[in-house]
Amino acid sequence: MDRFAARSLALRPAQRRDREDILHVLLHSEVFGLADADCVGEMFDETWAKPRPDGYRWLTAWLGQSLVGFACYGAEALTQGTWDLFWICVLPNYRGQGIGRALLEAVLVDAQRESARLMVIYTSSTPAYAPARSLYEAAGFVCVARVPEYYRPGDDLCIYWRRLG
Amino acid sequence: MDRFAARSLALRPAQRRDREDILHVLLHSEVFGLADADCVGEMFDETWAKPRPDGYRWLTAWLGQSLVGFACYGAEALTQGTWDLFWICVLPNYRGQGIGRALLEAVLVDAQRESARLMVIYTSSTPAYAPARSLYEAAGFVCVARVPEYYRPGDDLCIYWRRLG
Repeated sequence: MDRFAARSLALRPAQRRDREDILHVLLHSEVFGLADADCVGEMFDETWAKPRPDGYRWLTAWLGQSLVGFACYGAEALTQGTWDLFWICVLPNYRGQGIGRALLEAVLVDAQRESARLMVIYTSSTPAYAPARSLYEAAGFVCVARVPEYYRPGDDLCIYWRRLG
Repeated sequence: MDRFAARSLALRPAQRRDREDILHVLLHSEVFGLADADCVGEMFDETWAKPRPDGYRWLTAWLGQSLVGFACYGAEALTQGTWDLFWICVLPNYRGQGIGRALLEAVLVDAQRESARLMVIYTSSTPAYAPARSLYEAAGFVCVARVPEYYRPGDDLCIYWRRLG
């Protein structure tokens, strides 16, 4: 709390040099693991290797010189105006301060600026993801669909959904 | 019907030279369009450019020298044993002869050989996809989840699901 009050939060699109800091946040999230980091690393590299208007977008959250959270999002292929929040993550020590909420709101603003019609979020049904699900619900998302045992036995896919614009 | 009876159906993994025939099937499907063909072309190219054990798999259906259908499938990242049937398509003149069913069954056999636990299929709720949905249901898939207006207004995402093994 002190830190956030003392130094103001800044959000800005990621730069290529933020790669290691983003992976650091993910790997210290106490939620995501090595396989997730591989996936995020690949998505990050693809963003810079093959820039395209419908590619992944990365937003970073900073307190002073420290990258403390990020979001990755973008348009879903083969849809008309449906966007996907692929990743959102804040370092544990900086949670409960509205940083996740600020990232999510900024993502929604950017997507609406691009005339997005819907935003969807794919997430897990397990207790570890309860804070994330609460964040989505507080931002107006509804769980509209659930795919049983999608991630592994006992771990369903929950699809959160919100109209935009 | 004559053709299928006269020349027996052969299924085999795609080879790199099948690219144009696969796109031909897709573009003459009367279901898929140019955006789908771009997506399939990219997935096909990625399969050969970056071969990996968990990459896309392609199965082709042949009557004599003619490629008349194909399927594309593979493991879903970040899941434990969930596989996805990304594409399945048969040329209109060759439908109703069990070719789609044969492709789908062969996909299920291959996935089970790789210890897949679940297979999911993402498809559209619109009338154009009714034959595809019937095919999935006949093969034991159930629509477990529906995301409203995912593809466009009036066009929901239906998620079909089947346990394997």
